[in-house]
This record gives sequence, structure tokens and C-alpha cells, in this order.
Amino acid sequence: MAGSSFGTIFRITTWGESHGAGLGVVVDGCPAGLPLCENDIQLFLNRRKPGQSRYSTPRKENDAVSILSGVFEGKTTGAPISLIVFNENQQSGDYSEIASYYRPGHADYTFDLKYGFRDYRGGGRSSGRETIGRVAAGAIAVKILNRLGITFLTYTKSIGPVCIRPENFDPSRIPENPLAMPDSAAAEEARKYLDECIQKRDSSGGIIECVINGLPAGIGDPVFEKLSANLAKAIMSVGAVKGFEIGDGFRAAEAAGSSDNDAFTVGADGKIAKRTNHAGGILGGISDGSRILLRAAIKPTPSIAADQQTVTRSGEEITVNIKGRHDPVIVPRAVVVVESMAAVAIVDALFANMSAKMDSLESFYGKKEN
Amino acid sequence: MAGSSFGTIFRITTWGESHGAGLGVVVDGCPAGLPLCENDIQLFLNRRKPGQSRYSTPRKENDAVSILSGVFEGKTTGAPISLIVFNENQQSGDYSEIASYYRPGHADYTFDLKYGFRDYRGGGRSSGRETIGRVAAGAIAVKILNRLGITFLTYTKSIGPVCIRPENFDPSRIPENPLAMPDSAAAEEARKYLDECIQKRDSSGGIIECVINGLPAGIGDPVFEKLSANLAKAIMSVGAVKGFEIGDGFRAAEAAGSSDNDAFTVGADGKIAKRTNHAGGILGGISDGSRILLRAAIKPTPSIAADQQTVTRSGEEITVNIKGRHDPVIVPRAVVVVESMAAVAIVDALFANMSAKMDSLESFYGKKEN
Amino acid sequence: MAGSSFGTIFRITTWGESHGAGLGVVVDGCPAGLPLCENDIQLFLNRRKPGQSRYSTPRKENDAVSILSGVFEGKTTGAPISLIVFNENQQSGDYSEIASYYRPGHADYTFDLKYGFRDYRGGGRSSGRETIGRVAAGAIAVKILNRLGITFLTYTKSIGPVCIRPENFDPSRIPENPLAMPDSAAAEEARKYLDECIQKRDSSGGIIECVINGLPAGIGDPVFEKLSANLAKAIMSVGAVKGFEIGDGFRAAEAAGSSDNDAFTVGADGKIAKRTNHAGGILGGISDGSRILLRAAIKPTPSIAADQQTVTRSGEEITVNIKGRHDPVIVPRAVVVVESMAAVAIVDALFANMSAKMDSLESFYGKKEN
Amino acid sequence: MAGSSFGTIFRITTWGESHGAGLGVVVDGCPAGLPLCENDIQLFLNRRKPGQSRYSTPRKENDAVSILSGVFEGKTTGAPISLIVFNENQQSGDYSEIASYYRPGHADYTFDLKYGFRDYRGGGRSSGRETIGRVAAGAIAVKILNRLGITFLTYTKSIGPVCIRPENFDPSRIPENPLAMPDSAAAEEARKYLDECIQKRDSSGGIIECVINGLPAGIGDPVFEKLSANLAKAIMSVGAVKGFEIGDGFRAAEAAGSSDNDAFTVGADGKIAKRTNHAGGILGGISDGSRILLRAAIKPTPSIAADQQTVTRSGEEITVNIKGRHDPVIVPRAVVVVESMAAVAIVDALFANMSAKMDSLESFYGKKEN
Repeated sequence: MAGSSFGTIFRITTWGESHGAGLGVVVDGCPAGLPLCENDIQLFLNRRKPGQSRYSTPRKENDAVSILSGVFEGKTTGAPISLIVFNENQQSGDYSEIASYYRPGHADYTFDLKYGFRDYRGGGRSSGRETIGRVAAGAIAVKILNRLGITFLTYTKSIGPVCIRPENFDPSRIPENPLAMPDSAAAEEARKYLDECIQKRDSSGGIIECVINGLPAGIGDPVFEKLSANLAKAIMSVGAVKGFEIGDGFRAAEAAGSSDNDAFTVGADGKIAKRTNHAGGILGGISDGSRILLRAAIKPTPSIAADQQTVTRSGEEITVNIKGRHDPVIVPRAVVVVESMAAVAIVDALFANMSAKMDSLESFYGKKEN
Repeated sequence: MAGSSFGTIFRITTWGESHGAGLGVVVDGCPAGLPLCENDIQLFLNRRKPGQSRYSTPRKENDAVSILSGVFEGKTTGAPISLIVFNENQQSGDYSEIASYYRPGHADYTFDLKYGFRDYRGGGRSSGRETIGRVAAGAIAVKILNRLGITFLTYTKSIGPVCIRPENFDPSRIPENPLAMPDSAAAEEARKYLDECIQKRDSSGGIIECVINGLPAGIGDPVFEKLSANLAKAIMSVGAVKGFEIGDGFRAAEAAGSSDNDAFTVGADGKIAKRTNHAGGILGGISDGSRILLRAAIKPTPSIAADQQTVTRSGEEITVNIKGRHDPVIVPRAVVVVESMAAVAIVDALFANMSAKMDSLESFYGKKEN
Repeated sequence: MAGSSFGTIFRITTWGESHGAGLGVVVDGCPAGLPLCENDIQLFLNRRKPGQSRYSTPRKENDAVSILSGVFEGKTTGAPISLIVFNENQQSGDYSEIASYYRPGHADYTFDLKYGFRDYRGGGRSSGRETIGRVAAGAIAVKILNRLGITFLTYTKSIGPVCIRPENFDPSRIPENPLAMPDSAAAEEARKYLDECIQKRDSSGGIIECVINGLPAGIGDPVFEKLSANLAKAIMSVGAVKGFEIGDGFRAAEAAGSSDNDAFTVGADGKIAKRTNHAGGILGGISDGSRILLRAAIKPTPSIAADQQTVTRSGEEITVNIKGRHDPVIVPRAVVVVESMAAVAIVDALFANMSAKMDSLESFYGKKEN
Repeated sequence: MAGSSFGTIFRITTWGESHGAGLGVVVDGCPAGLPLCENDIQLFLNRRKPGQSRYSTPRKENDAVSILSGVFEGKTTGAPISLIVFNENQQSGDYSEIASYYRPGHADYTFDLKYGFRDYRGGGRSSGRETIGRVAAGAIAVKILNRLGITFLTYTKSIGPVCIRPENFDPSRIPENPLAMPDSAAAEEARKYLDECIQKRDSSGGIIECVINGLPAGIGDPVFEKLSANLAKAIMSVGAVKGFEIGDGFRAAEAAGSSDNDAFTVGADGKIAKRTNHAGGILGGISDGSRILLRAAIKPTPSIAADQQTVTRSGEEITVNIKGRHDPVIVPRAVVVVESMAAVAIVDALFANMSAKMDSLESFYGKKEN
């Protein structure tokens, strides 16, 4: 099935495998007139680049992006924007062995069952490199949103058992440490935890948190196209994500109504606001003007160097340990992926909202008759 | 925006408000030849009926369903199936007051901002009665799946702080207690907890768990149409759901790869299987043949009788306490809603999977040429 | 497959069979704040009612519509609008015979092959009554468009060999004659032609023309979502339509570029306009501000009383003549169906266009940053 | 709006402008296991290449295609197939003048109004080169269909007033003459007509006919997803197409039911068949097992060297004659585009049909319960 597109009015279509010619994305439905250059996208791609610390794979991937269409004289034209990153550093030889067996925690087995065979080189389509297209598209989505005053703050909330503490929260720390944590003490602790993981030839999961400021109220639709539902799909479609929360998330399940409800109030500016934000900025599937708060649970990198039990394609039980250059934790690199997918979902929701009221329609096209 | 449909090949479209003429759903893309009668659907609707215990609203809602199309001589014809439940017990008078202010935790405020006004009678489109269409459609989806050997077990996992214990797990208890818990001791505890909530004029949240057995491997698509992503959207689109997990979910974020990976093995039947199921039956977005395990976090019922701070439509701060017949907990009634949405998402994924391989296509239509 | 919906942002979903409980449509994505009552829709449905002359079936169908949802205090709320028409005059007995054989020109055979069996009562889902949902939705679409100054003129252009003449064109005649022709002389001629058809127990086809005034330039998208392509799908999805043209249509295929191109000019009002309109108001798939002109070719009613050769379900050759109350021509009744489908396609295109430019987006949501 | 994709389960997404870096398509939903190499696609692209006679532009476009993803060891993997053709022969200088005015018959004016500005180099996104992506995808669609015994015969039916004659019909002539006509005499006549056009610095339109053999009965859905409706959208989405017919098309509008209905019969092979095929192989929107017959009306190339009246972007009336290397007729080059779009629509319909019956579903997945 055609499963490589996301979004309705603003739609991204990704393609590519880790060891093919390259990877890319077609961004369709981008409004005309947005200033856009390759550097806008490169800055995003650089945030997911490996090799920036010992906590990510030492593979060097330059991942230089080219804009092939949809931009003319420095601005988007309304035509689809085709972005491409050629693969450079393919060492297919590293992967030949894994063709014969199913790596635990990977999609090898399910791809074989679904398609009859698979491109086994580095995970093929199920590789983490598949996120290159998402992030390239996300750069455009975020740029659109920034123009409308909507901004993102996305970071690592926890790695394994190590979680940031509210009292230490400092966004300026995020780009400073390779783990993208807004808390230096927690980052230091997490670093130690990862060192232990590496020593045990093991890996770690973690949680990513994304805060979206400036989203106007009224975005998202009731019922199936709730903003929360589309954010959930966007984030859960990222490989390795096993859980999603909006606002208090699973803690809301333990709460009482009296503490979970956010009381409305009138702010100093005379505007209606909420006193608290347990809801994470969404009521009934529609943004309420508070900041959006979401979280993604990332499982540990499945490629580990420790011994594991598995079976071969021919059904023989074997013990393997997966060699190669793998990330002991993918959480920090996935931060920009989560932000990108959230941005794509929000752009689509903003576009879909423009025809919600006859008033808006009439002021856009001109009212002619009663 | 058209946000009242879910699914691509098997698509449901719901409509209706709590105090309008009725509510319904159009189920489109149902295969021809499925035996179907109103009772099949009524049994599902009865599972979400209120008034079955003191832990749900004492409103009496018969919610008798009629099939208006798509069934002929006891079987589905392939045409869209229109299902309708007329509203009977509308006491619009009860709700007139809430027209003037924004109930905390409800969608009153966001509907007003999005649409300029709202049908304030009982929540209108954002009422819990909106789930009638979902459940009616779910009955059909589950019936299709049962024919293919796919079955559901869905239940309340926790209410507030009270959680079922694995050692007590007994599915036969689920229909026996009004809280739909598979653990009598936990159900008893939860009952006491809810009694306290009622006394404090408060409400409680909880967690629903859904287990899907018999789903073949290979269902779901890589990238954006991951089975996990579509299940997440399906479940997060249900009102009051604030979190979603597949398999170990947020616990995977704390785990190490060595314990989170599910080792493959060869079963007694000579078939490849997994020794554990931390993944919840989905690898790389595709079902792996193990049982699917998902969870939804439900926030506490926002309508509580205790005093709350809020503002009126004209921007005046007031104190309210919401009268009326409300559920102190909606979790038990939402069990069948979660099951229904999961079933709808899975039917769609099964249909989309049929063209995944040339082999399948050729055996379906007949191969003519090499 | 889910094939009963049309449109993306403004989406209609129809259901129902000619001899089931009723027929209806769910109109989703209608903006909030549109004044709407049942009479708005009834007036449209009355235009497709049979029994208004001897040239349509003498069946009496009141087809009274009810609004079941989506309207509150006389205005649309943004929620899906469910419209229903109950079937009244079902004489299933009339149709029992046709269960056994395949009527030439009907969908009996193809339904049987696709679905394994069919609801044979009056054509079931493939009956002309299926258009009730389209027309009910069309009434809403036209009402939205009228508010924006966009109006429709739709009429019978020809019946069999009898065509209206430009020199006689008079729109005021359309509602006056039962054939919906804007030319009294042609209508008189066509009436005679149909009398002959009736006498021969035969039927006639014809052409419907639809003129859309006031559509702003810029509507429709390049490539696959051309306005012309979506209008074509909308119109060709109506039963019995075998051809579609925009502007000069098939005559353009015989023309030379010098006569087919529409020269641009500057009008008396200082605005850019076209001197001619061979293009039918669409250039490169996008509306150019001229009136839209489209045509649909309708085949003759397949149900005729004359003898026909066919086969039974069990494969026996037989001669049949189809009894019952059939239209000798469906063209006049299909006029409002063509108009409705065109209107639905245009509303969707208008909504999709609102995010075409960053400028529009920024003036809608407020620009915050450069 | 995202308008660059076509299809639901088998979906193509095109991108690129005539004078950008290149053009391409992402083909998503292609089944795994189809043998595919670049030459399969190149052969299709060669059919739309210009410079093959004096009746097409003398521009030399090699249009060499590369497969960037989705194919491994010579077979499709189920992942999206990204195809790219780099632009080689861009002489942007040729086009600088047209930036200032609106070419009659082109999309210059409508793009400017929709997007605020346009990529004026060679038509940008509205150039005929946009069809490269369609044809590259069509090559894959046709290859899939050939495997199932479904074949295409597509040709020029008429050029200007010159039409092929049934008595001369000879498919072997199609590749032999540069006009792709299956009638040598008509091709000779058309050649003379085009010589006159060239001499007058004018251009010509024409009609393309496409015959599809071997399509099983039962493909397509009733109501909005009629096979005829989707074919109409597919074909009308091609630039310059102004009309579409299925079977007898507009001639059916003049016919009587007795002659338009196709009588059913039992063939020598004992199978049900139709004696005639006025319907063009589709009844009620569903294929009936006869060959599909469709036609597209193509308008004359709008770029002509003769003097034309138009206006500049600043609203000044001017006389222009469009220099450059233009086709006096695009019909022969559009033959493969029509075939490609028809093939894409049919593949999607075949995939969507697989879940039409419970029987099919149960034999695909295994029936487990009654």
C-alpha cells in the first residue's frame, strides 16, 4: 500500500533506503512565496547527523541536501519541492551477514513475511536513515510555522532511568550537550549511564518532549482528525517510538477530575486563559491557545553488540552479536525527527482550519450575497 | 474540514450530536457477503450503555440501532451500511445554563473559538455520545476480524491509582463486574476508590488495555502507515484519551536493548516465534504474528459536581458546579470504544495489505505472462 | 472499497438503495455559520423528482428530506450534516423477476460479478435514486457558493438528435418546460421526439450543460488536482454519464491553435480578461476568472419496454421486456445532479486553495516574523 | 494544496519543472517482487521524446531515467520507487521574454493569480515536461498489468479534421508513423494537414483513443469511485485535454436505448459476454469483462508562431508571436501519457477491489470461524 505519504493539504512523501542511491522527500502543498534555500534544510539535517559524540554511531554521514524543484529565485513557487540526499558512505559489506538471519528488535522478519524478501543492506527502508526525508520536510514546516509565530522547543527528557529535573530546566543547554538535554546535571548522569551501556555492549531508550508555543486556538478538528490524534500518528510513525502522551498523558489516568481540569481565568491582558495546562494545550481535539506539550517514548537501539538468540531465514536457531557502527542511544538524534513530524502535522491542521467558518470564507473570497 | 471519517479502504463516517435527532455512522468498504443483523451491532452498543451501575450516569439510553442500508437478505452487499440510533432521552433544559460559560476540561471553549458558536446541548458533537457511531462500526469490524480468526480482549487495566495485578488476571471477570476489570480484587478496590470520588463530588481516570490475538504477520506498512501509528491515531481520536502505548510503551524508554529486544526462536510447531513480546506484536510498524498489546490513558470525567473556577462567554470569572447526571468514571464504558477503533484500524490495514506482493496479486487475478 | 465519499476538505458520503429504508448523505467539512433549513435542500430535491410530466416515470416519490445533525438554531455548526430521505413507495414486487436475469445496459451483471450477489430491488445501490444524496449535498454546496457570488445555470442542451439553438437561448424557459431546455422551440421538438420514443417503447439520451459564473481566478491545482479533472470525476461518477467536456471539448481537437487560444485583453473596468472562452474558464487546470462551461453526455435510459436479448444468472439466453415505471429520458432529472456534483467539486477546490500563498496564510493567522 | 499525487493504494507523486534540476516521480504501493530495471521505464519515456519528426519540437531531450530506490537485486521491494530524469537542455534564455506577459492558452495568467508569481522558464510546472513523471510511473503500472494479462493499445485517432477510418485500422502501423496512427492513409493525410499548419505558423489538436484488453469484470466501484470516473480524472488531469469519453461517449447522447444497450449472450466458450460494446466495457462504473474503450480530446498546442493579442503582467495590451521550438501538434507524444494515466488508474482499482467479498478475504487470509 502507498504508505510513504503523510498529510492531506500539506503532504510529504519520503523515499529511499540506507544503502541505495540516496533518500529524499517530496513536499507538496507548500504555499508559494516562502523564502527557502538549501541551508534552511541543511541546518535541520545536521541536528540528526551521527558521529557528533561517542553516544552516536561513528559513521560519518554528510547528508548534504539538494533542492531539485519547487523553488525559484529563492522562494517556493507552490509546486512540489523535491529534496534529495545522496548516500555516500555505504559499506554494504558490513551488512551481508544479516541477510541470513532476523535481528531481534528489527523489522527484518516482518519485512520478509510481508514482501517475500527484503533489502537487507543496513535495514533498507526500515533504517533510521529513512528519517532524513522527514527532517528535510520538517525544516520547511517549521519555517512556515515560525512565520506565523509558532515555535518549537524539543529535547531529551530522559535516557534510560535518568530524567531531567524541573528545577534544573534550562533550554540553553540543549544544543550544548550531545544528548540534547535541557539540564546539565541530568546530561552528565545520562552520559555515565550510557558509558555503562556501551561497556555492557548494550543500549538505552529514552523520552523526547516537544513544546509548541504560539499555536492559535481552534486548530484541529473534533472526532477523528483531532490535533492530538494526528500528532500521535505523526510521532508513532517514527521508528522505535512505543508510546505517546499529550499533556499529563498517563498521569492523567491516575488523577482526579478536580486536579486534572484546567480552570479558565481572565489574564492581565483581558484574554481568556487557563490557570494550568494538564491538557497539554488541546481540548476536545482542538488547540486551546496554551502551549502544546507532547512526549514520545523511544525504545533502546535494537542493534547491540551483546550476544542474542535468534533464527535464520531457514529456521535454524543461532546466537548472534551485531557488529557495525551503531548508536548506543538514538534518542538525541531523534529529537529533531519528533519536532519535524509534529511540525508537519500542525501545518496540515492549520491549512485545514481555514474553511472552518463562513465568516472566514467570506472575508477570504469576498461575500456577495446574503 | 471533513474530519468525521476514519480509514481508507474500510472507512467509517460518523455524525450526530448528543441532543440532536440522533447519531449514526456510514460504514463504507465492508466486503459483501458478511452475515449481519441489528443484534450484532446492538450487543456492542449495549457494552457502552450507561445506567448499568452507580459508577456510570443514571441516564437511561436505550440506543436501539437500525440498519438503513447495505444489508440484503441478511448479508452485507458491498454497499455502504448506514446505522442510526435516534436520541430519546434529551433533556435540553438540563444544559441551558452551560451555554453561557466554558466548562473546564471540556471542548466548549475550543469549539466557540473554532466555529464562532456551538451546539451547547450536552456537549453537542463533542459529547461522549459521539462514540455511538464508532462502536456501531466497531461491531462490524470485529465481526469481519472474527471470521479471519482475529479476536479481541479489552478491559480496564486501572482506575485512578488502582491497577489490576497479573497474578489475579482472569478474563472471565470482565463482563461480571461493572468496571470491566479482569481481576475481582482490583475491581473491589476500584469500587471503593470510586465511592470516595463520588463522595468528594470528584471523578477518576484510568487505563484501558486491548489485546488482539490471531492477527497474521505482515499487516501494516513501513514509514507513515505503521500499524502502530494507525492504532495510535484511532485510539487518540477517542475523546478523553491522553496517552497511547504499544507493547512495553513508556517502560521501553527506561529499558536496555538486551532486555527490550524479543529473541526469535523456533516453536514446537516448527514455526518462527518470539520468546517475549516487549514489542507488543509490531516490529517496524508491521505485525509480527505475536499478539498486539495496546493501552490508552483516559483522563478523569471533566464534569464534576465540585466547585470549579471558570469564565463566561463574555469574559467574567465565575464559580460553577456542574449539575446533571454524569459518570464518575468513563473508563469502563470506553472499553468497547477502544476495542472498536482498534478493530476498524486493523480491518483497514488487512485490506491494504492484499496487494503487497506480486505473488498475491497474481494468484488473486491470475498470472498471464512472465 | 470505500467508494461512497467525494471530496477532501468538503466531503460528502452517500448511502442507500432504491428499495431499502431510505437514502441519505453525510456532508462533512461544511463551514459553521451557514443558515440552513430543510427547505433549502427540499427545493433541490424537488428538481430531480419524477412524475412531473409524461417524460419521467409516473412513480410518485415525495422524497421529503430531514436534517438529522450539524444544524443548530438555524445555522450549520461545523459538525457533519446528516440528511435522510425515507423511501415511501417501494413496490419490491415489481422487481422480483429481474433478480433472475441481467438487464442490458444496467449494472446487474457487474454487481453480481464483483460482489457475488446483489440487491436486485430496483437496481439497489445502482438505482437512479442513489443521486438523492448527491443532490441533497449539492443544495448545501450551491448555498455556500451563492454566498461567495458564484452561481449556476444548468440545463438540457440536447435530447437525442434535438439540440437547443444559440439564437433561441433563453434561461427563463428552463423551469417552464419539463425538459429543462432554455429554448422553447427545441423543447417542443424534443417533446415530439420523446413521444416517438415512448411509442416505440424506446428511450433517449441527451446532453446537459452547466455554466458557472463568478468563480474567482486561481481555483484548482496544477497536475492531478486540476479543477477540470475534479469536475470530470464528479460528473463522470454520475450513473449513465458517458462523456465530459470542458469549454470547446471535443471541438477543440479539430481546431487550430490560432482559433482555440483565447486572447487576453484589458476590459473597460481596467481588469485583465479574455476576449473569447474556448477554454471554458480553466487554463492549466486553474480557473481563469471567465465562466466555467462543462457538458455531460447522458446515455439513454437502459430500461425499455421493447424486447431485448439477455441471459439469466444461470447462463440461459432469454428475451425480456422490462416492465415498470421508467423514464423515457433521464436527462431533465439529471440536470440538478450534474449541477450538484459540480458544486461539490468547486467548494472543495475553493477550500483547498486558501493555503496557496504565504501572504494569504499570514493575513489569515497573523504574520509574526520574517 | 497537495495536488501532485494520484491514486490511493497505488499512488504516484510527481515533481519538477521544465527548467529546474530535473523531474521525477515517486511510485508508492508497488507490489514487491516485480522485476524492474531502468530500461523498462526508458522504453516508455522514449515514446514521449520529442525531436523524432518535424511534427514535434526539434529540442533534443535524452531524458535518461535513474531508479533511486525501491528496487533491489532487480526486483521491486515494496518500498517507494523514486525515479528521476535530470534536465539537460535548458536554454532559459529562450524564455526570459515570456516572463513579462501572459501567453494565450497557457497557464501563465492563472499561475500568477494563484501563487503571486511563477517560474516562467518554459512553463515551469505547467510545462509538457511535467508528464515525464506520469510516463515513468505508467511504465511500472503497465508492467504490473501485463503480468495479469491486461494490455493496452493506444493511438492517435484524429489530428485536426483528419480521422482514422475503421476499414483501414491496422495496429502495426502505430509505431511506424510519427503520428502514432493505426491507418497509413490517414497518417499521410494528417501529415499534409500539419504541413499546412506549420506553414501558417499554427498548430492542431486531435483525439487519442485507448483500448484496454484483458481487464477482468468487477473492477471499479459504484458511486464516486466508478472506474469511468477515475479514468476521467486521470486523463483530464493531463494538460491540454478538454474532453473525455468512455465507449460511445457523446454519441450515446444521440442514441436510443434499443441501440445503445449491449445485449448479453452466451459465447462459444459457455461464458456470458456482450454482443456489442457501446458501453466501452464499463456498466454502473464497474468493468464488465469487455475491452475498455476511452478517448481524450487534446486541444491544439497553444504556443504558435503566428501573431496573437495578449496583455503584459502590468496590464498593457501587446501583440506577441511565440518563438522557440514548439510542437505543431502534441497528440502523438501524448499517446503514451494517456496510456500511462489509464494504467495507473486501473492498477489502483485492481488493488482496491481485492477486499470486495468476504469469500476473497477469507481465501486470502484463511477463514477461521463461521
